[in-house]
Amino acid sequence: MKARSVNGETAASLAARLKGGDRAAAARAISWIEDHDPRADEVLKRICAGAVRSHVVGVTGPPGVGKSTLIAALVDVARRQGVRVAALLVDPSSPFSGGAVLGDRLRLEAHAGDPAVFVRSLASRGAVGGLASAIWGARRVVETLGAELIFVESVGAGQADVEISRCADTVIVALMPGLGDDVQAIKAGILEIADALVVNKADLPDKDRTLASLRAFWADDAEAGGAGGGWKKLLLQTVASRGEGVPAVWSAIQRHRDYLGRSGEGATRRLRQARAEILAHLEARSRREWISLVGKEAERLAAGRTDPVSAADRLLARPARRKAARRRA
Amino acid sequence: MKARSVNGETAASLAARLKGGDRAAAARAISWIEDHDPRADEVLKRICAGAVRSHVVGVTGPPGVGKSTLIAALVDVARRQGVRVAALLVDPSSPFSGGAVLGDRLRLEAHAGDPAVFVRSLASRGAVGGLASAIWGARRVVETLGAELIFVESVGAGQADVEISRCADTVIVALMPGLGDDVQAIKAGILEIADALVVNKADLPDKDRTLASLRAFWADDAEAGGAGGGWKKLLLQTVASRGEGVPAVWSAIQRHRDYLGRSGEGATRRLRQARAEILAHLEARSRREWISLVGKEAERLAAGRTDPVSAADRLLARPARRKAARRRA
Repeated sequence: MKARSVNGETAASLAARLKGGDRAAAARAISWIEDHDPRADEVLKRICAGAVRSHVVGVTGPPGVGKSTLIAALVDVARRQGVRVAALLVDPSSPFSGGAVLGDRLRLEAHAGDPAVFVRSLASRGAVGGLASAIWGARRVVETLGAELIFVESVGAGQADVEISRCADTVIVALMPGLGDDVQAIKAGILEIADALVVNKADLPDKDRTLASLRAFWADDAEAGGAGGGWKKLLLQTVASRGEGVPAVWSAIQRHRDYLGRSGEGATRRLRQARAEILAHLEARSRREWISLVGKEAERLAAGRTDPVSAADRLLARPARRKAARRRA
Repeated sequence: MKARSVNGETAASLAARLKGGDRAAAARAISWIEDHDPRADEVLKRICAGAVRSHVVGVTGPPGVGKSTLIAALVDVARRQGVRVAALLVDPSSPFSGGAVLGDRLRLEAHAGDPAVFVRSLASRGAVGGLASAIWGARRVVETLGAELIFVESVGAGQADVEISRCADTVIVALMPGLGDDVQAIKAGILEIADALVVNKADLPDKDRTLASLRAFWADDAEAGGAGGGWKKLLLQTVASRGEGVPAVWSAIQRHRDYLGRSGEGATRRLRQARAEILAHLEARSRREWISLVGKEAERLAAGRTDPVSAADRLLARPARRKAARRRA
C-alpha cells in the first residue's frame, strides 16, 4: 500500500523521525499499528531493514503477582547502568483480565519522564489476530527508537502469553507465594516457556511451600531436558516493591543473553521469532480482508444454504479472482 | 480434498454413522477435527447441510469457580426432562490454565454412561488457530448426533472465551464469592458477553460482598443497554455441588432461548455465529498452509535480508501463483 499524507504525516516522514529517536514518532507509529492504519505497514517496511538487535525479555504470569513492579525494578537497574529500555504492556482483550494491574503500571509509568525509557500499553482494538501483530510491530518501533533492552509484559492469560514466549529472547515467568496449591494448574507448560521463574512477594508466609512445589517441577524438567548441557532454568525470589532479589534477576537476564549469543540457541530463537513475526502479519492482514468479505457467505450459512467448509473454500479462492480481475482492467 | 479410506473409514461412512446417532463415530469425528485429518472437512461438508438447530450454552469464568460442577448439575436437570445433551470442555493451550478443573470434570464424566449425554474435552493440538475451528466443528458433530442442548465450557482465559461467546446462543459467566475485590479485574467486558451471571459456591462467607459489587456493575450495564426493552441480564446464585439454585439457572436458559426465538436477537446471533464459524475455518486452514510455506522467508528475515511486511506480501501472493500453475498443468 502507498503511504498517505492524511494528518500531515507520511510513512516516510514518520520512519525518518523514528530513526532519529523521536519518542512522539514512536507513540504515533504504535497507534497506527493498533488502528490498522495502512501507513503502519509502510513504516515497518522502512524501519525493519538492517539488523538492529535489541534483547527482548518477556515477563508473564498470573494477574496480581507483581509483574509490572518487577519490570519497574529491572528498569531502575537498567537505567543505573545506562541501558536504554522500553516496556510494552500487553492488555489482552479477555474480559477476565486487564484492569487489575493498572496500579502497578502507574509505578512503571513513573519512568515516563526519562528520555531513555519508553513505556507503552498495547491493546487489541477490534480484530482478534491484531494483538500479535501489534506486539511484533511495537517491538520493531522501539528497537528503531534505540531501545537496547525491551520488556514485554502480558497478563498471563492465554494467547498473549504464547505470542510473548515466541517474541522474547528471555522468558521470565513471575509467580507469588500462595499459588502452591495451584501448581498443578500451572503445570508443565510453564516450564517449557520459562528461562527463569521468579517468585515475587517472597516476604509472604506461603513462600516455602510454593518454592518447594516449584522445585519439584523444576527437577523433573531438568532431568528431562538438561542432558544437552544447555541453559539451566533458574528459580529466583524477589520482593520487587523493595528491590530485593532484583539484581539477581538482572544478572540472570545478562547471563541468559550471553548464553544465547555463544550457543546455537540464540540463532534457533531468532529463526523461530522470524517465523512467528511473519505469521502474525499474515494472520492480521488476512483476517481484516476476510472480515470485509465474509458477509454474503455468512448469510448463506445462517440460512442453512451452505456449509462452513464450502464457504471457506469460496473465500479462499476469491482473492485470486479479484487480482485477476484487476490485472485485466 | 477427497475423502481417504485410511483406517478403513471414509468421510462418507463416518458422516452416515454420525447421522444415525453413533457416539463412537462422534468421538472419531472430533479426533479427526483436532488432528487436522483432511477427512474432517469432508465430514463437515456432509453433515452441515440442512438446519439442525441445537441450543448452545457457553459457560465461562475464572478457574476454580465450579463451571464443570454447574454444567453437571444442569445436565442432571436436562436428563430428568428427557433432553439430549452434549458437553464440550475446552482446554486452552495456555500454560496458566488446564489441569485444575480435572476433578470437576470427572464428576461430569459420570454421565458418560448415559447414551443421551455426550461429554468430550477439546484440546488445541499444535496450531493455535486450531482450537476455534475445533470448537465449531465439534458443535456440528454433536448437533448431528442429536444433542438438543450443548454446553461449551472454557476455562476463562483469553481467546477461548471470546470464541465461546461467539459460538454460544446463551452465555453464562460463572464466578464465586471472594472475587469481590477482583471485580475491577473482571470489569465491564464480562457484562457484554454474559446473558446470565451465576455466583456459584454461594455458601461461602464473602458472598454478599461479591454480589453487591456485581450488582453495581450490573446496574450500570442495565442503564446503558436496557433502553430497548431487550433481555435483562440475570444475576443468580448456586451451590452447584448440592444442586441449589440450579433449577433457576435451568429456567433462565429456557427463558433466554424463548427470548432469542421471539426477538430479532436470535437471528442476529445466528448471523454472527455464521461469520465466526467461517472465519475460524479460514484461519485454521490458512495457518496450516502458511506454516508449511514460511520457512524460507523466515530465514531471510532472521538474516536481516527482508522485512516482515514484504515477507507476508510474498506469501500472500503465492497461493494464487500455485493455483495458476496447477491450472496450466
